[in-house]
Amino acid sequence: MGPGPVNAHPRVLRAMSADLLGQFDPEMTGYMNQVMALYRPVFGTQNQWTMLIDGTARAAIEASLVSLIQPGEVALVVNFGRFGLLLQEILTRIGARFETVDAPWGEVVPMEAIREAALRVQPRLICTVHGDTSTTMAQPLDGIGAVAREVGALVYVDATATLGGMEIAADRWGVDVVTGGLQKCLGGPSGSAPITVSDAAAEAIFARRHDEKGIRAADAVDGSGPRIPSNYFDLAMIMDYWSEKRLNHHTEATTMLYGARECARVALGEGLEARFRRHKAAGAAMSAGLRAMGLTLFGDDAHRMTNVTGVYIPQVVDGEAVRRAMREHFEIEIGTAFGPLIGKIWRLGAMGYNAMKHKVLLTLGALEACLAAEGVSLPLGAAVPAALAAWDAEMAA
Amino acid sequence: MGPGPVNAHPRVLRAMSADLLGQFDPEMTGYMNQVMALYRPVFGTQNQWTMLIDGTARAAIEASLVSLIQPGEVALVVNFGRFGLLLQEILTRIGARFETVDAPWGEVVPMEAIREAALRVQPRLICTVHGDTSTTMAQPLDGIGAVAREVGALVYVDATATLGGMEIAADRWGVDVVTGGLQKCLGGPSGSAPITVSDAAAEAIFARRHDEKGIRAADAVDGSGPRIPSNYFDLAMIMDYWSEKRLNHHTEATTMLYGARECARVALGEGLEARFRRHKAAGAAMSAGLRAMGLTLFGDDAHRMTNVTGVYIPQVVDGEAVRRAMREHFEIEIGTAFGPLIGKIWRLGAMGYNAMKHKVLLTLGALEACLAAEGVSLPLGAAVPAALAAWDAEMAA
Repeated sequence: MGPGPVNAHPRVLRAMSADLLGQFDPEMTGYMNQVMALYRPVFGTQNQWTMLIDGTARAAIEASLVSLIQPGEVALVVNFGRFGLLLQEILTRIGARFETVDAPWGEVVPMEAIREAALRVQPRLICTVHGDTSTTMAQPLDGIGAVAREVGALVYVDATATLGGMEIAADRWGVDVVTGGLQKCLGGPSGSAPITVSDAAAEAIFARRHDEKGIRAADAVDGSGPRIPSNYFDLAMIMDYWSEKRLNHHTEATTMLYGARECARVALGEGLEARFRRHKAAGAAMSAGLRAMGLTLFGDDAHRMTNVTGVYIPQVVDGEAVRRAMREHFEIEIGTAFGPLIGKIWRLGAMGYNAMKHKVLLTLGALEACLAAEGVSLPLGAAVPAALAAWDAEMAA
Repeated sequence: MGPGPVNAHPRVLRAMSADLLGQFDPEMTGYMNQVMALYRPVFGTQNQWTMLIDGTARAAIEASLVSLIQPGEVALVVNFGRFGLLLQEILTRIGARFETVDAPWGEVVPMEAIREAALRVQPRLICTVHGDTSTTMAQPLDGIGAVAREVGALVYVDATATLGGMEIAADRWGVDVVTGGLQKCLGGPSGSAPITVSDAAAEAIFARRHDEKGIRAADAVDGSGPRIPSNYFDLAMIMDYWSEKRLNHHTEATTMLYGARECARVALGEGLEARFRRHKAAGAAMSAGLRAMGLTLFGDDAHRMTNVTGVYIPQVVDGEAVRRAMREHFEIEIGTAFGPLIGKIWRLGAMGYNAMKHKVLLTLGALEACLAAEGVSLPLGAAVPAALAAWDAEMAA
């Protein structure tokens, strides 16, 4: 019950025990095409280029940035937590320039501030995180596409922590590239990262296509733009691999693809609306339970992610001792924090297969017992009924 | 029965259906430490830094090169097939300079030629493939460490296609970084790439350590060298994650780690010597069977990989029609070829879980039937007994 990775859905685990297929076996390429179709609704898009990056969520972030921006070009980073810092870090390594538009940890950046910054900076790319687990805040993104079009920028969104749990509306937001991971709300393991790429972004990326020597077709024509400085993260070659060209690039990670496919099948089988509601109910129940214990939540209530909740550690206890007791006595893991929040807050997740009523209630009951054992004075027995009432209210809404 | 990916070992598939753990759960970090210990013998090394890269084999190649060489520095590439071209491709993208020392496809590069080239080029890094599946050749590497020390270079070896099937002797060869994949001789899926890094290479890499902003400790000291231009492939940060520092970098791909761990457990349980012999017997059986059919093998007999065999397609048949018949009638996949060998040879693998007597014999029997059905005149019934005799001779040797 931390901020991810979390327990995987049993169907996903079973799917990953299937035997392997050759990478160009028609059955395997058929699965690849299914994955493309399955992830379009998950991303809220009609984008043709909707596929997987073979690596963790961070791999897809780097693949996006290295393929979307060139050394020396300017990006604008919407920065409200640790993962905004990661975007800056990757841009620095690529040799891109960037400016930031910031919110303090625990808040989000108003769209008007993003617009003002974009008009001032005139970026080639606007980059943002959707839900930043380090602060538990979800950045509203309605309208960001219009801002980008005003300045001729593309938009990249890191939706690792929200994909499959909160609505991702790539097309309605008007954003170009969105990436995720399986290990949060999709209820799978880390190691495969779904990505969607708009036609406009694909065009910009294909302009930088330089097929590698060992596999290029005799009639291959390189793009006019500069070579993408990574081979593994070259989205032009990766799109060619996922296209009917079936360009040989990496060897698709078969087992992870089976897992990613099953994550999406589980999500679409449940229905995305039902799934978002379940996550919202779990987050509301967790928040209500923590508050009923007398604890104080971290961050702006209006922009809370539904799937992870930050809560201040009572000053009288050692946060790590409580986390240890939770794990050792109850086999429940809750999250520590990053940067300025280390030792100040815990982060409690309820996402994917863990966004369930009983898991939230068991976690609250266990936390109450651990806090009481540490001598915290709190209203015993209040958290669970408060959480249950909040769950029921959200599910009935 | 192609050049990989191949069928996974059932134990590996079962291991990958275990539920996930939090990335800093002591059970999970315990597994990480086990993986480090398990892969040392597989690589033939005592290197502390023996771990996994979260991506396909190609990811580990790029992580090695981007961490080992700086833009503008000079590498020497030992080039004898498609994967030598990949090394050049990645070096180009990094902005490194390089020269090559080449062999025609189907041969290997004599160590004396490597030495002469190294003395002339004075590289910072010597890069080579061990077994290049595109040509089915295995480059001898005994002595390459001594050559490198003579010129003050480090050595990188791509052992994707041989790790777990042919001897890898990182310490005896005196090489610095070796990478592999699971999907060939280790009998697992693509998506996790074992790597080992010598102390000398680690020192050079740590000199370029620049911890990312969001997670750096207050007392972190950056290295004096230039920042590694990739975050995901920054081996300094990856080593810090696998060390007792447990620096938060990517979220380790739990399921792939379970699979990688089981691959090594299976390999060490069988015994590496027994495993190498089994691969050698399978390769000898495949070669003997193909020759008994009257077919001609591709490439230098003295430097053949044991786990994949190239064979000329008889001129009277359409190679793709035969591959299709093998797959559709027998559910057996054999490999096509790359570059100058497209349409000229097939590549038949027998590696990992597929390096078994019955699989080689079944493949030969099926191929004989498919060739006969295409009207090829060949000595019916000769391949299987020839293969069986070769298998038995190797296993008794």
